[in-house]
Amino acid sequence: MLLEIKLENLPNHAKEAKVTEVCKKAGDKVNGNDILFTVEANKSAMEIYADAVGIMEKITVQVGDLVKVGQVVAIIDGEKVQAHNTTNQFDYFANLLKPMKQEIKTDVAIIGGGPGGYVAAVKAAQLGANVVLIEKDSLGGTCLNRGCIPTKALVRSAEIYSHLKNAEHYGCLASHVSLDMKKVLNRKNTVVNQLVQGIKYLLDKHKVKVIQGVGELLDTETVFIRNKTHETYVKAKNIIIATGSKKAVPPIPDLDLENIIDSDQALQLDKLPDKLVIIGGGVIGMEFAFIYANFGVKVSVIEYFDEILASCDSDICEEIGQIAAAKGISVYKGARLKKIIKSEDGQCIVSFIKDKEYYLTADKVLVAVGRQPELDGLGIEKLGIELNEHGKGIKVNSKMQTNISNIYAIGDVTNKVLLAHVASHQGIVAVKNIMGQPCEMDYEVIPSAIFTDPEIAVVGMTEKMAQKTGVSLEVGKFPFAASGKALTLGEYRGFVKVIKDKATGKLIGGAIIGPHATDLIAELALAIKNQLTPEQVIEVIHAHPTTAETIHETVLSLEGSAIHF
Amino acid sequence: MLLEIKLENLPNHAKEAKVTEVCKKAGDKVNGNDILFTVEANKSAMEIYADAVGIMEKITVQVGDLVKVGQVVAIIDGEKVQAHNTTNQFDYFANLLKPMKQEIKTDVAIIGGGPGGYVAAVKAAQLGANVVLIEKDSLGGTCLNRGCIPTKALVRSAEIYSHLKNAEHYGCLASHVSLDMKKVLNRKNTVVNQLVQGIKYLLDKHKVKVIQGVGELLDTETVFIRNKTHETYVKAKNIIIATGSKKAVPPIPDLDLENIIDSDQALQLDKLPDKLVIIGGGVIGMEFAFIYANFGVKVSVIEYFDEILASCDSDICEEIGQIAAAKGISVYKGARLKKIIKSEDGQCIVSFIKDKEYYLTADKVLVAVGRQPELDGLGIEKLGIELNEHGKGIKVNSKMQTNISNIYAIGDVTNKVLLAHVASHQGIVAVKNIMGQPCEMDYEVIPSAIFTDPEIAVVGMTEKMAQKTGVSLEVGKFPFAASGKALTLGEYRGFVKVIKDKATGKLIGGAIIGPHATDLIAELALAIKNQLTPEQVIEVIHAHPTTAETIHETVLSLEGSAIHF
Repeated sequence: MLLEIKLENLPNHAKEAKVTEVCKKAGDKVNGNDILFTVEANKSAMEIYADAVGIMEKITVQVGDLVKVGQVVAIIDGEKVQAHNTTNQFDYFANLLKPMKQEIKTDVAIIGGGPGGYVAAVKAAQLGANVVLIEKDSLGGTCLNRGCIPTKALVRSAEIYSHLKNAEHYGCLASHVSLDMKKVLNRKNTVVNQLVQGIKYLLDKHKVKVIQGVGELLDTETVFIRNKTHETYVKAKNIIIATGSKKAVPPIPDLDLENIIDSDQALQLDKLPDKLVIIGGGVIGMEFAFIYANFGVKVSVIEYFDEILASCDSDICEEIGQIAAAKGISVYKGARLKKIIKSEDGQCIVSFIKDKEYYLTADKVLVAVGRQPELDGLGIEKLGIELNEHGKGIKVNSKMQTNISNIYAIGDVTNKVLLAHVASHQGIVAVKNIMGQPCEMDYEVIPSAIFTDPEIAVVGMTEKMAQKTGVSLEVGKFPFAASGKALTLGEYRGFVKVIKDKATGKLIGGAIIGPHATDLIAELALAIKNQLTPEQVIEVIHAHPTTAETIHETVLSLEGSAIHF
Repeated sequence: MLLEIKLENLPNHAKEAKVTEVCKKAGDKVNGNDILFTVEANKSAMEIYADAVGIMEKITVQVGDLVKVGQVVAIIDGEKVQAHNTTNQFDYFANLLKPMKQEIKTDVAIIGGGPGGYVAAVKAAQLGANVVLIEKDSLGGTCLNRGCIPTKALVRSAEIYSHLKNAEHYGCLASHVSLDMKKVLNRKNTVVNQLVQGIKYLLDKHKVKVIQGVGELLDTETVFIRNKTHETYVKAKNIIIATGSKKAVPPIPDLDLENIIDSDQALQLDKLPDKLVIIGGGVIGMEFAFIYANFGVKVSVIEYFDEILASCDSDICEEIGQIAAAKGISVYKGARLKKIIKSEDGQCIVSFIKDKEYYLTADKVLVAVGRQPELDGLGIEKLGIELNEHGKGIKVNSKMQTNISNIYAIGDVTNKVLLAHVASHQGIVAVKNIMGQPCEMDYEVIPSAIFTDPEIAVVGMTEKMAQKTGVSLEVGKFPFAASGKALTLGEYRGFVKVIKDKATGKLIGGAIIGPHATDLIAELALAIKNQLTPEQVIEVIHAHPTTAETIHETVLSLEGSAIHF
């Protein structure tokens, strides 16, 4: 049967795109996940798949053509198959073929295509290396596919929904305000896909070879990958392990009950629960708490420690705790989960111990108790690669080298600081060392961003850390309630805090809770990393009316002379 | 008649407030704008007025009491008068009394309570000076009452309204979306009032004496103020002129037509026009263009120069021009306004010349063609205070001194850079010099913030300026379309640009158009002011996923190695 293949999508919703490569010609055999041709638009690349099986009758595009959605691009004599899906590939001929063996020589092999691995790959390529990147799942890793990015897409929908509900305060009227969770999830998926395509484009542009599959170390210079089509031996002068982390599974019985979900599943709820109990008041737990509370779900959080977001200073914890309470989020601190029982009417009954035993009922229970390094299938034992104390993650020096000098490890698998931007920076440090530009990783000035509502961001030394190390501090603080811009936004909860080392007179830490906190922290990070004094920040004129003025005022208040407070 | 006086408002919508001072006792004569007592709540102070005329029968509050809205606070034997209004004071006894003469000795007298004057007042008080501040209208000046702040309150309502209209994109549903302009304006007024109260509180806290009226210089050490109650001679060792600016009136005939409005009136439109023509595509004109376009008004802009926002680089102008066009804003550049005619059916007919004569019809025409220094009533001629060339503004040196050594001038009246944050900084420079801390004003690194949608921010050297001065540049650029955070926000228009001086290797300028631009510029301002190199920014880890990552990537791209582009 002759099928007309029409163009269904283009990158970034472009109206038209340019054909960059044509991969099939008349007479070729076509499989459902074969690439017909590639296009580029709005600075993103996309591969166009056949979505059919058969023989190419005619391909109607050439390199350089401008193509549009809906246009017929090929005619195939065969039959239609389900739309191409990268995570569940349909392979018509797979059963007929055995994997082919191949050996590839390269300068740098990187196992894992998350924010550590793919950034390292791009950087290495920029510095002139030949690079192979091995990814078992989807490029972008946890951050892009199951972490930072999809949660922030939900945060945005939650923010817009809040605006709808509170629109009258701003003089805007609307009725029948509701959520369409299918659309919320579709948008999230679109953003993720767009960014995954973006990474593919970047790797392509830098001529990084990407191999799909689990990378296994055979010796200090060989990574083995078996997938449906190939058995590949990558011979590499240097290897970077960037396999990331996986969800920690707490020792709770019956975690496989139907309505107990993990953070991956919490990103896929197309029907909102009425009541959600979250086990764990860390960053992941609290981000979801605010997302779902803003979506109108009754949220309760059970936290083992005496504070939520326990790494933050207590003034931050107190402020976000008050804000959470005002949003109707119930937080139970210093509470030990005892068990989760399924009731006959489909509810989860969660029991926990504080001074006595308490019970909560919920439609869904989200378990978000942290992450642990991913070492499965790597085969590091055979090579004698050393782990950190207690076996947690791969041990590295400040150059990101393992005990085997040409094998590096970066990102969550090193169990240092489990943040995407740390992984990226570690990746750049590893690559520079490999490429003969010696440098070391510095963990002193790492900003962190927590997307509660309002946001929280922290950089450098906290008061909590200073108490432990005995550093003598001075602290400046300024409330957003005194910021004109924050008032115009209608977001005046929170404050900025900066910390100075009394001995040196330098800025060494900062924390922000309030509007745009995660963006504002960048200025403090720059100041601290470059060892600026408060005076060097005070001398900088800050634009009015902006939330950044609060940074200026906070540093002034550190020196005893805030203007607006 | 015995009247029960009830508490009607508290600062910042507080539920209760603490009484800080009681100003009347039983038997006292009470005038409509006499203060009964003062309260403090949520870090703001408020004066409570009688709103009645007569004799105090009983005052039922004491210092330290907590009072609530609705509570009876006094009983007055007299009659009710209209609610107290600072701009239109009702004075029952005024006709019976002649102004009292008084002389006040002070260290510093400041004429004008805008962002230049009130900041200077607070700073001078912090440094130990006795300060008198003279304000003819409302504290906060143009910025707070008719400029930065009220426009940003409207920008926020416009943003929320856009979110409502585009909610479906984010999976949020609503019907009957509309605007209630009265509520929009009420919210704006509330924000302005809250901030005016905040400034009163700050000045009070720093024991700055505020005198209402026009300040006139009698000699180099005397400022004279006449108001309804007093004729005051302020004898000051130092005087700071901070009278700001007023709207420039262009030479257009019939500017007093009913439907021709200025920027003050554009802040008060409780009924939206269908069509609005804006004369002037500068910052004020373009901010209003985006506000009203987002409110659903058909906006046209007529700009005399060949570019809108003419001080920006052409890539910024081009980008905002495209975005404006996509929002339905029609921009006519290089267009000279010819005349405005009123039609019999109530429309304005605007004619302008480009290659030929064109016509536009509109319900309202907004004239926004800039501002000029306010010198009215100051009496500087008598003292021989020198003006800048062409008589535009008061001439000052880098210490903000006029040609008379104990008279300083700051802010718009100096016609240097007409921005609120520049006025504040100039105020601090003036005060430091007065208080024996010599310092100079530096105009090299001034950020500016333009609240179009998206925002624009610029700091330091532009490419346009560099062309004039012959500085040899390198430019790095990074698009928000390549930022993960921007995609999650759904705001991917725009870019970041940084400029390096080839000769010194230092960062000297930057510009941002895109989400959170006006906050992000602070990091670049800090880097440029502190003469950092690109490498010193690159070494700073930026948190993921934040819009601040674009700064990092832009500086990387300047050095030829952006990761995500």
